[in-house]
Amino acid sequence: MALIVQKYGGTSVGNIERIKNVAKRVARTRSQGNRVVVVLSAMSGETNRLVALTNECGEFPVGREYDAVVSTGEQVTIGLLALILGEMGCQARSFMGHQVPIITDSRFGSARIEEIKPDNLMRELDKGVVAVVAGFQGVDTDGNITTLGRGGSDTTAVALAAALKADLCEIYTDVEGVYTTDPNICTDARKLEKVSYDEMLEMASLGAKVLQTRSVEFAKKYDVPVMVRSSFNDAPGTLVCKEDEDMEKVVVSGVTYNKDEAKISVLRVPDRPGIAALLFKPLTEAGINVDMIVQNISHDSHTDMTFTVTKTDYKRALKLVKEIGDKIEAKEVVGDPNIAKVSIVGAGMRSHAGVASRMFEVLAQEGINIMMISTSEIKISCVVDIKYTELAVRVLHKEFGLGKDDIGEEK
Amino acid sequence: MALIVQKYGGTSVGNIERIKNVAKRVARTRSQGNRVVVVLSAMSGETNRLVALTNECGEFPVGREYDAVVSTGEQVTIGLLALILGEMGCQARSFMGHQVPIITDSRFGSARIEEIKPDNLMRELDKGVVAVVAGFQGVDTDGNITTLGRGGSDTTAVALAAALKADLCEIYTDVEGVYTTDPNICTDARKLEKVSYDEMLEMASLGAKVLQTRSVEFAKKYDVPVMVRSSFNDAPGTLVCKEDEDMEKVVVSGVTYNKDEAKISVLRVPDRPGIAALLFKPLTEAGINVDMIVQNISHDSHTDMTFTVTKTDYKRALKLVKEIGDKIEAKEVVGDPNIAKVSIVGAGMRSHAGVASRMFEVLAQEGINIMMISTSEIKISCVVDIKYTELAVRVLHKEFGLGKDDIGEEK
Repeated sequence: MALIVQKYGGTSVGNIERIKNVAKRVARTRSQGNRVVVVLSAMSGETNRLVALTNECGEFPVGREYDAVVSTGEQVTIGLLALILGEMGCQARSFMGHQVPIITDSRFGSARIEEIKPDNLMRELDKGVVAVVAGFQGVDTDGNITTLGRGGSDTTAVALAAALKADLCEIYTDVEGVYTTDPNICTDARKLEKVSYDEMLEMASLGAKVLQTRSVEFAKKYDVPVMVRSSFNDAPGTLVCKEDEDMEKVVVSGVTYNKDEAKISVLRVPDRPGIAALLFKPLTEAGINVDMIVQNISHDSHTDMTFTVTKTDYKRALKLVKEIGDKIEAKEVVGDPNIAKVSIVGAGMRSHAGVASRMFEVLAQEGINIMMISTSEIKISCVVDIKYTELAVRVLHKEFGLGKDDIGEEK
Repeated sequence: MALIVQKYGGTSVGNIERIKNVAKRVARTRSQGNRVVVVLSAMSGETNRLVALTNECGEFPVGREYDAVVSTGEQVTIGLLALILGEMGCQARSFMGHQVPIITDSRFGSARIEEIKPDNLMRELDKGVVAVVAGFQGVDTDGNITTLGRGGSDTTAVALAAALKADLCEIYTDVEGVYTTDPNICTDARKLEKVSYDEMLEMASLGAKVLQTRSVEFAKKYDVPVMVRSSFNDAPGTLVCKEDEDMEKVVVSGVTYNKDEAKISVLRVPDRPGIAALLFKPLTEAGINVDMIVQNISHDSHTDMTFTVTKTDYKRALKLVKEIGDKIEAKEVVGDPNIAKVSIVGAGMRSHAGVASRMFEVLAQEGINIMMISTSEIKISCVVDIKYTELAVRVLHKEFGLGKDDIGEEK
């Protein structure tokens, strides 16, 4: 008898019909003899509606009261699912964050889980009752309701799986799993059977919107096997787990892209200690996240520095950097919002040389100019002109043998 | 410095603009040096929306999970009001039922308040913080969310006022107070300055939908002065309080009516002990509430029995009573849904004879036939043909000098 945590996202509980489908799947899992914990998001659109209400109330509504309001969406779905399960003869009980309890710090709007006390849930599970837990929310030690931030329900599910020592954490979503790349771009994109935590982390933060980054970090830390699969069919999904020998054979697991960034270059700035700090401190203070940063070797004691920010922050960042540019005596500050970041990710890169040069070569063959390069142990990202995004993804997908037709080829 | 509990209903918090108006009033009350506790309902329509969702989930959704779902409406409004107050520079903090805590029994859907622990609220009030409490909800001793049933927010407010020993409980609603009768029927209906708990109880249960009956019972039990007033203007409202000498001078305080009843007569039933029980037990078992019951003296060991039920229950009740009628050898069972109950209420009736005969006389003068009569210490109700409702209300209102133009006349 296994203990399984199942998490269903907003589209999977978007209306009563869909919640009934979720109930069927939950009841089936239960009737197979498993102990089942279900974690739900709010109905799709509901959290946005609640956030919009709070935005009408003031300029910066985030805080204790914001959390009290936006946490209600999940309270509704867990009650409804528990009702439907009960009607089906499958004993169930809803749990809000404070009823579990899921104890967090008091950073309202982006709280971190500190502790989950498993006793209340275990007592129900031992009685054969399905525990239906509100995602996204917790309670601080003063009894205030807190929320974990967008996508927090994934984190709730993984954290519960860790606390309950679950055998598996299933994340049900509107895609069938993690793909070698975006199937909208490459028709022969292949669903991965397995992917390591590290690869998933790189993929999640690089733009594959399947799993929330924080939840993957949690899963890695507590070694929780996570299965990503579709709530609309029974197709097997993708298992996110510890790296195993199998995986190492694959050099590149996926190709990702992100069109949501813009780049800013500070040209011919005097190359002396402290320049980078002068440049980035004001950005941090303005709440602007910087992603890639590239600095070239210097000529004549001057260097160029280029970095990327999200498109949303682009204009604000450019204005700020132009002001700083004057102060640090840079020759010029130029920006370009028409870029995309294309990346290849694979745990096998660690042991395989030459992956980067293959990437650069295949892009060059297509006449795609590389504007920036950034690497980690298991990924290589290139910034290119946005118009080449799809082309770059396709040729890289083919080059590293990721397509359905390529299985069995040397990778 | 007074401690004031203010309760605002669904229409008063129906949208953000209205919640902002509530915030202004709360902030003003606070800035006048009072300690303020605010109790809110859900936005108008929201509880209905939530109930409709639960109804899609099963046939009899009432229970633990139903309460978890429908209690979210109040959680939203208290968070929003606390947000707005904060933006206005008026410190505020929202409290859900379990955060106060408001401890109830476990009768989900119609829980009764058992205890309110005032310490958490008092701590905030002493710091000058406005406490914004969710109406309609509580928590049982096992930590389950409970709801008090429709109109429960009035009860929350009065119970809080009692627990906190508040100086006043203000119920803000969409009418300006308690009127001598329905202003839609009598244009010269007058707002009452004061009304006793007992009069209010009779009026509330007789159809004047201003205050929830349960909340008035609570107010009477704990002697909480309740002011009913409009949230849309600053007009003084009606004070519901202990009967005082002033009141006794007024014989009749108001005329009420109820068109929501139907009557059923069981004719020529053998007059022997146990007949009434035989008749009403099946109705009780079927969950049908019986309001007025009239039994005449018997002739030839036979009697007639007439009673009223709500129009909703009428058909079901009639069918049931016809079955019973056969068993108890009644000659006939007849029903009539086209009736109305018209009542006069007044604490002064206790000490004034002749009120009933004046009522009957004035109705007779208009040719209105009285079908049933029922009296209590401070009210007299007559059942008449529904088409005479407005006429009966108007002539009674005039007869007992209740109109604006009648002030100063003998009452």
